[in-house]
Amino acid sequence: MPHLKEKRNSRETIFQGKILNVYKDTVILPNGNQATREVIEHSGAVAVLAIDDQDRIILVKQYRYPIQKSSLEIPAGKLEDGENPLDCAKRELEEETGFQAENWSKIMSFYTSPGFANEIMHLFLATGLTFVGASPDEDELVELYKYSLDEAFNSILQQEIDDAKTINAILWHKIQVGMNS
Amino acid sequence: MPHLKEKRNSRETIFQGKILNVYKDTVILPNGNQATREVIEHSGAVAVLAIDDQDRIILVKQYRYPIQKSSLEIPAGKLEDGENPLDCAKRELEEETGFQAENWSKIMSFYTSPGFANEIMHLFLATGLTFVGASPDEDELVELYKYSLDEAFNSILQQEIDDAKTINAILWHKIQVGMNS
Repeated sequence: MPHLKEKRNSRETIFQGKILNVYKDTVILPNGNQATREVIEHSGAVAVLAIDDQDRIILVKQYRYPIQKSSLEIPAGKLEDGENPLDCAKRELEEETGFQAENWSKIMSFYTSPGFANEIMHLFLATGLTFVGASPDEDELVELYKYSLDEAFNSILQQEIDDAKTINAILWHKIQVGMNS
Repeated sequence: MPHLKEKRNSRETIFQGKILNVYKDTVILPNGNQATREVIEHSGAVAVLAIDDQDRIILVKQYRYPIQKSSLEIPAGKLEDGENPLDCAKRELEEETGFQAENWSKIMSFYTSPGFANEIMHLFLATGLTFVGASPDEDELVELYKYSLDEAFNSILQQEIDDAKTINAILWHKIQVGMNS
């Protein structure tokens, strides 16, 4: 859609942090007007829908400081510089949950907040799980849960699960299971 | 989960912008260690799954500057200060698409990027649509599309649709339709 494109005119670097950079850009709109855009630059992330041999979904509960509460989510983590998303997914699954997986496949990639951030999330399916022991960072406090698909779906309806990537993964899984039954 | 809670120790205001604020906080972890948190504060947003009388999903294509491309999404927009989410949803649907809806219901709310932002997205279902004429801001360039559920679902599989809130809404709708058929 080249006729919708906004062209950068100038960039002010507001902040360069550990997990994100912040810019204030001026852009030229397709109609020739100028506008301001506040943009968060993020390295991207992975998330893992890991299903064990009893068809339970592996979930982790952790405190999410930005929303000031703990959140029940599928395992996920930030891409390190230049890291391959699948390698990152394997690393994060094992670090956070202690599981290794025999079978990996890509489900989809999506942008989490394209209105203000460039974060892309790569979602993988992992099955054939073996527990080898978790190795979280000392400062990464995480609790492990295993939910059946029904439990997970009901947790969305009851808003116990309210994290976008986790909802995406569970709804996708429910559709796949429905198609194959 | 009080035992997972991270307590704020100090806050540095990095940026106060038009659509977001940026803070760098230090926090005390449950194990007593100190850590840094980079946090984006956002006013929250709404998104609307609008279904017309031919069971087509209303979509808008617009340029998303942070991801440097145009994106096919359900209608959505930022909450204004103190604005009621349903009022915002009605306003955004009409401004972006020209549709008013007779029937409104809440589907769910979710956090888009709880690892670094507090943005919450309130998702509504709107049916009984009447076209009254769009009234976008002069600088808001938007194209209107109507997709059947099959077209929308296939667009997710083919990654033509790669926006998290839009994927959530379409997968949710596919499950509802499957349950009622």
